Amino acid sequence: MIEQLDAKPPHFLGNLFQPRSIAVVGAAASRNSGHDFIRHLQSFGFPGTIYAIHPDGKAVRGVPCYPNLTSVPGDIDYVIFAVPAHTVPDIMHECVEKHVKLAHLFTARLSETGVPELIKLERRIVEIASAGGIRILGSNGMGLYDPAHGMSFKANFPKEPGNVAFLSQSGGNTGEFVYRAGLRGIRFSKVISYGNACDLNEKDYLEYFLEDPATDIITAYLEGIRSLGQDFIATLKRVASRKPVVILKGGLTPAGARSTYSHTASLAGNPEIWKALLHQTGVIQVETLEEMEDMVVGLAMLKGLSGSRVGMYAGGGGGMVAAADTFYRYGISLPELSQCNIDELKELIPSTWMMMRNPVDVSAMGSIRAGIRLREMLFENANYDLVINDMSVDWAFDEERGVGAVYESIEQLIDLQSSSGRLLAVIIRSADADEPWRQGAVNEVRQRFAERGIATFGTLRRAAWTVSKLRAYHGTDS
Amino acid sequence: MIEQLDAKPPHFLGNLFQPRSIAVVGAAASRNSGHDFIRHLQSFGFPGTIYAIHPDGKAVRGVPCYPNLTSVPGDIDYVIFAVPAHTVPDIMHECVEKHVKLAHLFTARLSETGVPELIKLERRIVEIASAGGIRILGSNGMGLYDPAHGMSFKANFPKEPGNVAFLSQSGGNTGEFVYRAGLRGIRFSKVISYGNACDLNEKDYLEYFLEDPATDIITAYLEGIRSLGQDFIATLKRVASRKPVVILKGGLTPAGARSTYSHTASLAGNPEIWKALLHQTGVIQVETLEEMEDMVVGLAMLKGLSGSRVGMYAGGGGGMVAAADTFYRYGISLPELSQCNIDELKELIPSTWMMMRNPVDVSAMGSIRAGIRLREMLFENANYDLVINDMSVDWAFDEERGVGAVYESIEQLIDLQSSSGRLLAVIIRSADADEPWRQGAVNEVRQRFAERGIATFGTLRRAAWTVSKLRAYHGTDS
Repeated sequence: MIEQLDAKPPHFLGNLFQPRSIAVVGAAASRNSGHDFIRHLQSFGFPGTIYAIHPDGKAVRGVPCYPNLTSVPGDIDYVIFAVPAHTVPDIMHECVEKHVKLAHLFTARLSETGVPELIKLERRIVEIASAGGIRILGSNGMGLYDPAHGMSFKANFPKEPGNVAFLSQSGGNTGEFVYRAGLRGIRFSKVISYGNACDLNEKDYLEYFLEDPATDIITAYLEGIRSLGQDFIATLKRVASRKPVVILKGGLTPAGARSTYSHTASLAGNPEIWKALLHQTGVIQVETLEEMEDMVVGLAMLKGLSGSRVGMYAGGGGGMVAAADTFYRYGISLPELSQCNIDELKELIPSTWMMMRNPVDVSAMGSIRAGIRLREMLFENANYDLVINDMSVDWAFDEERGVGAVYESIEQLIDLQSSSGRLLAVIIRSADADEPWRQGAVNEVRQRFAERGIATFGTLRRAAWTVSKLRAYHGTDS
Repeated sequence: MIEQLDAKPPHFLGNLFQPRSIAVVGAAASRNSGHDFIRHLQSFGFPGTIYAIHPDGKAVRGVPCYPNLTSVPGDIDYVIFAVPAHTVPDIMHECVEKHVKLAHLFTARLSETGVPELIKLERRIVEIASAGGIRILGSNGMGLYDPAHGMSFKANFPKEPGNVAFLSQSGGNTGEFVYRAGLRGIRFSKVISYGNACDLNEKDYLEYFLEDPATDIITAYLEGIRSLGQDFIATLKRVASRKPVVILKGGLTPAGARSTYSHTASLAGNPEIWKALLHQTGVIQVETLEEMEDMVVGLAMLKGLSGSRVGMYAGGGGGMVAAADTFYRYGISLPELSQCNIDELKELIPSTWMMMRNPVDVSAMGSIRAGIRLREMLFENANYDLVINDMSVDWAFDEERGVGAVYESIEQLIDLQSSSGRLLAVIIRSADADEPWRQGAVNEVRQRFAERGIATFGTLRRAAWTVSKLRAYHGTDS
């Protein structure tokens, strides 16, 4: 990654998040959380020095182990705490002594418990760190995933970096979102799971994402805010005016708000106020993680889509009726084929041309050649902002007929999309199946589209929802 | 299947749909549609006689082939037409001669083309059949799937019968729905894909389902109706008053309505009138096939659920907040644990009990034993109408930790459910994954639940939607 030349000084987190050395306190030779952090740093190719800190002094996966931080010979920039909460203050004092810059507190059971002594303990930890010039990521957070710089907290995250940043107060959501969006071809610049936000908070992270040249799209799961309200809103406005920002706010209902406290000690705030504030900022609001997935696929892969005239084809007439109904409900239009297209179809398929209307049921054509030509027509026709191919039908995957024909057809489709430069979305249902060959085939097809940056959606309704959100976003944007 | 003793004579379709012999016209030795029909009859163990009819006279998969129907030595009850439309009238005359009872016209390109001559051709076919006392299933329909009697039109449909009937004007929807719902443990009594309904229509089929003792739940995808409006509404009312009926009406929007004509020559009718009429009949209306799947899983597996007080547990706090928000939006309540439960938890997990609130994040407990006990508490507590276990979290499936522990845990859960007799729903996301072991594990888990009749949902939102629909249905029912 080449840093962009910029008149402004880089954001302070850029430096803190690219440490030359990391110590993992609590990492044991046998598998525990600290051990896992080292495993992930190794497998993602962290280029700096790693130290394990554990009283037993046993090397962890070939990484030297020291009984404590002060006995480490070299400098330490970044410390991951994977130890019980009550041991943190003493270790933080050692961090101060070693001039550590960033402490990531994976350590939980602090303020989120609601127990007064533990709230106090967290406050004491922050005081020690602040006095020593150390910033804290966490507590109760999974930390940083930055594949371009060899940082990760999960084994199954993609190794390749991308242009989407994700900020989350929930480690579980982070794991879900990065993995699931990853299967659809989304890659990440930085992902931060920050839990209780006892020091660094949402405002710092969002400002960092705004300045980060590797980040084009910003996504966030927030439960509460720690920064001052008006200040945060101003930050959101500034960020959202320069990069698309998608926010899932947890605790927007009374029941959800009660849950946020025991999760990350967050006061979720008044739902109505939140909604109104977010609306003012130009942020795209979503209600579930699945919606966030769809939205980021839309922003990244249906780039700049501002219209909603769809040309759609698939096989199976029942699906076509459902498509027409669903699109209509989301305000999406299905302009008819042009007269010139119809004239050509009359020649090609004299006995079935009259049934070809958008959305097109190619299974009724009775001609493979005509089906291929019709697909081209949709890409050629300037009346369509987007072409949608519905591959969710079951017969697309037939073991006896062989899935080789499907792969061939999608390669033709991908070529057509890339040579025409038009936008394409593919509907492909999940790989739930009792036959392993079918699971494999569905995943293979999705992966081929994902690798070429083509948007895939699990159902037509999710695609329609995304198109309508993109239109609204790019509409207000212009 | 033991037929119920009933004062009324059985519905006439019961007899037509259990033929002693079937002839497939157009079945060739090499694979074509007719050949496939024979293949499916064989693999589903059709107990009667099968004949292939083809001019080349070559046996099809060991089934004797005759050049035409009249040269078949034995009686023929049921004829499947897998031939071009213009050849149908002559063959129908042969059917009359052979005293055939039911003709299934898989043959398409008739009235749905909108071409006047083809509309006339279909009318002529019906006239020949009617005059000869033959009823027609189709045209343009996939026909009958009745696994208890060895009938099927798809290879990947379940071999075991069940208690759900499905009526559909779309063959593609049928394939999708039976297969997808099948993966979630739903099994079918009868499935009829009836296309253009040129003779037998929706009213006949629904009345048949009502009388059919093997059918407890009725589902239907309709595009238009062929029977008289008021008569059909009266039928729906009668059927829905005795068995739950779920209807997906295609063409409820202007765009969808245009599509229905070229699909099944249906006039979809005025959307508002349809909605109002369906509402009066006590039918459960759904908007997509996914909703129909969820609804039938709810009716079949969350039997009689009329309340919506949920006790939920999962791992990961972000998911708990999302759950609370989603449930609230659907009007579902999450009553707190009882004081007695809290007191017990204080003993079991003195340092984390205060974070245990419904929905419960067991990952924050720090004790496997306490997690198991908490699960029991939810099943014991009479304040919950339904227990929901969210297994959609990514870390539930960890290769290194092994999925064996997951299988063990779900077996315990299934035992707990069956011994307590309480209702249980499980959230498990799709098997989309790039690691085959993970796809396999997700499918294995879903299948174990499905086999024991436990409801599974792909997302929490879909479960919440279903619970709210069931409450509304059983509420108006009582």
